[in-house]
Amino acid sequence: MTTPTATLLISCPDRRGLVAKIANFIYTYGGNIIHADQHTDFASGLFLTRIEWQLKGFNLPRDLIAPAFNAIAQPLEAKWELHFSDTVPRIAIWVSKQDHCLFDLIWRQRAKEFTAEIPLVLSNHPDLKIIAEQFGIDYHYIPINKDNKQEQEAKQLEILQQNKIDLVVLAKYMQILSQEFIVQFPHVINIHHSFLPAFVGANPYHKAFERGVKIIGATAHYVTADLDAGPIIEQDVVRVSHRDEVEDLIRKGKDLERIVLARAVRSHLQNRVLVYGNRTVVFE
Amino acid sequence: MTTPTATLLISCPDRRGLVAKIANFIYTYGGNIIHADQHTDFASGLFLTRIEWQLKGFNLPRDLIAPAFNAIAQPLEAKWELHFSDTVPRIAIWVSKQDHCLFDLIWRQRAKEFTAEIPLVLSNHPDLKIIAEQFGIDYHYIPINKDNKQEQEAKQLEILQQNKIDLVVLAKYMQILSQEFIVQFPHVINIHHSFLPAFVGANPYHKAFERGVKIIGATAHYVTADLDAGPIIEQDVVRVSHRDEVEDLIRKGKDLERIVLARAVRSHLQNRVLVYGNRTVVFE
Amino acid sequence: MTTPTATLLISCPDRRGLVAKIANFIYTYGGNIIHADQHTDFASGLFLTRIEWQLKGFNLPRDLIAPAFNAIAQPLEAKWELHFSDTVPRIAIWVSKQDHCLFDLIWRQRAKEFTAEIPLVLSNHPDLKIIAEQFGIDYHYIPINKDNKQEQEAKQLEILQQNKIDLVVLAKYMQILSQEFIVQFPHVINIHHSFLPAFVGANPYHKAFERGVKIIGATAHYVTADLDAGPIIEQDVVRVSHRDEVEDLIRKGKDLERIVLARAVRSHLQNRVLVYGNRTVVFE
Amino acid sequence: MTTPTATLLISCPDRRGLVAKIANFIYTYGGNIIHADQHTDFASGLFLTRIEWQLKGFNLPRDLIAPAFNAIAQPLEAKWELHFSDTVPRIAIWVSKQDHCLFDLIWRQRAKEFTAEIPLVLSNHPDLKIIAEQFGIDYHYIPINKDNKQEQEAKQLEILQQNKIDLVVLAKYMQILSQEFIVQFPHVINIHHSFLPAFVGANPYHKAFERGVKIIGATAHYVTADLDAGPIIEQDVVRVSHRDEVEDLIRKGKDLERIVLARAVRSHLQNRVLVYGNRTVVFE
Repeated sequence: MTTPTATLLISCPDRRGLVAKIANFIYTYGGNIIHADQHTDFASGLFLTRIEWQLKGFNLPRDLIAPAFNAIAQPLEAKWELHFSDTVPRIAIWVSKQDHCLFDLIWRQRAKEFTAEIPLVLSNHPDLKIIAEQFGIDYHYIPINKDNKQEQEAKQLEILQQNKIDLVVLAKYMQILSQEFIVQFPHVINIHHSFLPAFVGANPYHKAFERGVKIIGATAHYVTADLDAGPIIEQDVVRVSHRDEVEDLIRKGKDLERIVLARAVRSHLQNRVLVYGNRTVVFE
Repeated sequence: MTTPTATLLISCPDRRGLVAKIANFIYTYGGNIIHADQHTDFASGLFLTRIEWQLKGFNLPRDLIAPAFNAIAQPLEAKWELHFSDTVPRIAIWVSKQDHCLFDLIWRQRAKEFTAEIPLVLSNHPDLKIIAEQFGIDYHYIPINKDNKQEQEAKQLEILQQNKIDLVVLAKYMQILSQEFIVQFPHVINIHHSFLPAFVGANPYHKAFERGVKIIGATAHYVTADLDAGPIIEQDVVRVSHRDEVEDLIRKGKDLERIVLARAVRSHLQNRVLVYGNRTVVFE
Repeated sequence: MTTPTATLLISCPDRRGLVAKIANFIYTYGGNIIHADQHTDFASGLFLTRIEWQLKGFNLPRDLIAPAFNAIAQPLEAKWELHFSDTVPRIAIWVSKQDHCLFDLIWRQRAKEFTAEIPLVLSNHPDLKIIAEQFGIDYHYIPINKDNKQEQEAKQLEILQQNKIDLVVLAKYMQILSQEFIVQFPHVINIHHSFLPAFVGANPYHKAFERGVKIIGATAHYVTADLDAGPIIEQDVVRVSHRDEVEDLIRKGKDLERIVLARAVRSHLQNRVLVYGNRTVVFE
Repeated sequence: MTTPTATLLISCPDRRGLVAKIANFIYTYGGNIIHADQHTDFASGLFLTRIEWQLKGFNLPRDLIAPAFNAIAQPLEAKWELHFSDTVPRIAIWVSKQDHCLFDLIWRQRAKEFTAEIPLVLSNHPDLKIIAEQFGIDYHYIPINKDNKQEQEAKQLEILQQNKIDLVVLAKYMQILSQEFIVQFPHVINIHHSFLPAFVGANPYHKAFERGVKIIGATAHYVTADLDAGPIIEQDVVRVSHRDEVEDLIRKGKDLERIVLARAVRSHLQNRVLVYGNRTVVFE
């Protein structure tokens, strides 16, 4: 459990011998594989795999793993990422006024449901400063309006860089990030409070109420330039009825949002998510 | 269980004393209420109720119930329906080429999951005639194309009238009914193979696959002139993953479609569905 | 929404005219019913109802409602409870070492998902004192062992009485309450970390893992003298797979426990739960 | 899709290099892996894998695959099975009086949801003969009572052998198979109409009703000598309420039973289920 591991996430054009090639690479240096899973997407002809092995007993020094694997990956035209389980990722949680996802993520991190540092909370409102402080986390209040968006995003990027943030989690941050921002910092997970692609955009619970749906949902996805259209990581739903007013949808939705966002963040942090096209493989 | 009952479905502007008024009406004539449920929609100021009582021991003759209740309903500006449980509704099942919902509905009717006669199956394709015949049900083959739609719909309406059909169930009937048809025969339930309002229109499973959703759904709704926009009666969902190809979505979706359509038809036939605006109350 | 209401929860032998009698009682004094629901349990011949009306405009003074209704209830052999929505119930949360349900309940109370005061947290361990203090809630540390159970339960009862506690919520309190305790304080809700009646007693997640189930659950129920056998208020489940170790079941189970317990507590506090025999009606 | 494949299901003590060894075996002969998944059960120290590859282009003749792989498997102390996708398994469906699972399995086979022949239906009652005949399937009526069980089981075994049956599906067959039977024919899947291990044995829906559960379930499992205690393949659940009488639980349960049994049979027939101890891995 607690011995450090290395994880490779690989996607490449499908061909014979890929499993053998990658497994041999690990075995050659004495690695013990503890998780290996692959998927072939026949439509796109892509082979996608996640392979995790214990570093204890692996004879290749850490800093040589990437160059050694690169020599294998290049002829395969593979895209790949290498992660070490004892490198603790740093996440910034962005919020507006609602506190449920913020509370939840902090609680889960403290309960060790995932491994990450949370050096900062960032918000366009001052309201949740008290919660961040309660847990000893820096709070950056950066108000946004139509006129200052560009310069404020520059500030935000600076904060991310200064704090060496690996992942931004939009935990009910009710602002849209500009395309320029996403290009410069593409590792952003958002929770959208609907079952996408239903009810894109603002006020999904009001729209769901008006449409008279019998089930509502929440969707965690990577943020792209297209609003609410990025690759979906996780979704879940809950049943509602005619008894539920809009405020009941909002209340029930909060439980969904907390759970769906937490699952997505955990999968991402455990390097279980592989994006290809506008889709994800979530290795379990 | 088996003694006949009367059911009133009522909607009217909310005011004091409505429950008492309606309950007194039943009690005055010695009726024994076995189900009563009400809902107030605060947004529209509407009171909606379903009340069911045993006819045994009810001292008002059947043919006088409607006029007697009308005298109460008029001053309340109430819309209402009266149904007797021993009046067996007649349903027409409309299909194209897929047989799973047809099979399922017939099986459920035979298993007495709902009470209805199924005098006919109607289709724009000849393929499922063999199934209808297997169960001794008339099969009307009415092919539709761009040029003959109007006259064929006239034929369809004639068949519905001749057979005294109370409800049309579109059990994967892959044609759109014209607005004129709906005006003349408004009692139509459709099963749409997506979690509406996501993926309106054709090929929802293909669209769901392309969007990379993690959950798919099915929706049973009353048909209105707006495609896939009528009042929703029932929805349900099932989890999918990157492993699921389009054909897997279709396969998993069939189970959803069968169950969701059957629940909606059963609720309708038991007079548990009250439409108001574009929403439904489904009394349980 | 915010105008105070009165709620009657009634159970009595079924007979004609019950709905009319009760609705007339409200209407006679000018009450506006905002929720009324009834259920007939045919097996036991019981009529069960919940009726809620606005006190504004109700002409009977509050302190006369109970005696006035009693005159109606007695001839019906009815058991009944009367509650006013502006009487804020006082709950004591009992915990051992796990904090997730405690955190969750406090957060929901602060978020006004239910209306209650939480004057105290009680525990057989000192661990969670820091959390109670963080939210300004008194923490009573009462260690329990085989020898001191009787006297410690006496202390616990005293604390409940002194603090005028209406409801005890066992939020992962890992001790069994004695029959004597329950007799003296019967308003106790427990969260059991399994899908009861599967895996009664200790270590349900370990047992679930060993049995190789594909779904795990959680159950909120009223506590009775029989361990884990009291009336069930709410249950929910989550899918697991061979990939899930015992610690994964525990982690996934925590989300279930939080949600199931919160729903049960909320239903109870809104006077939506009626116990009869060993079963509950939860009016929605 | 339609080119034939070979599938290996393997379990062995975990050690380094297993993935490489097995993948190399396939690659050595030019096989193209289309599905490979593995799981390490840390508690038992077992490595479990499923690997499927296309036979087209695989240079080892079919009849040599087993002996060639055996040479690899023996030193690993591996248990393994080899299956070819174009070998159509033969299943016998056993029923008593209820028809829903029988209908469902036949429909799914005709709809090609799984690939199998269904040469016979066997029953201890004559009731469903008409359905078997409707689909042109042999029906064996073998009544069972306390006195004739042993000889009737001998007959049943004979029928299975004569018809070269690979799998028996107990589709609501309400008799218990003897330990002797299971020893001689161990490939039996049963659907139990409860969320096991809750409500083992007879009348689970009645027991669920009495216990007042808020959710009911169904469980598909391999049959062992211990009643309802064999390895679980699949489970699912549906929400119920106080409104649901026993007959409603039975009705809702039928939908569960159909779906859960069908999923389990499909997984088994696609060689996705690996039993170890009293647990299963279901490779997806």
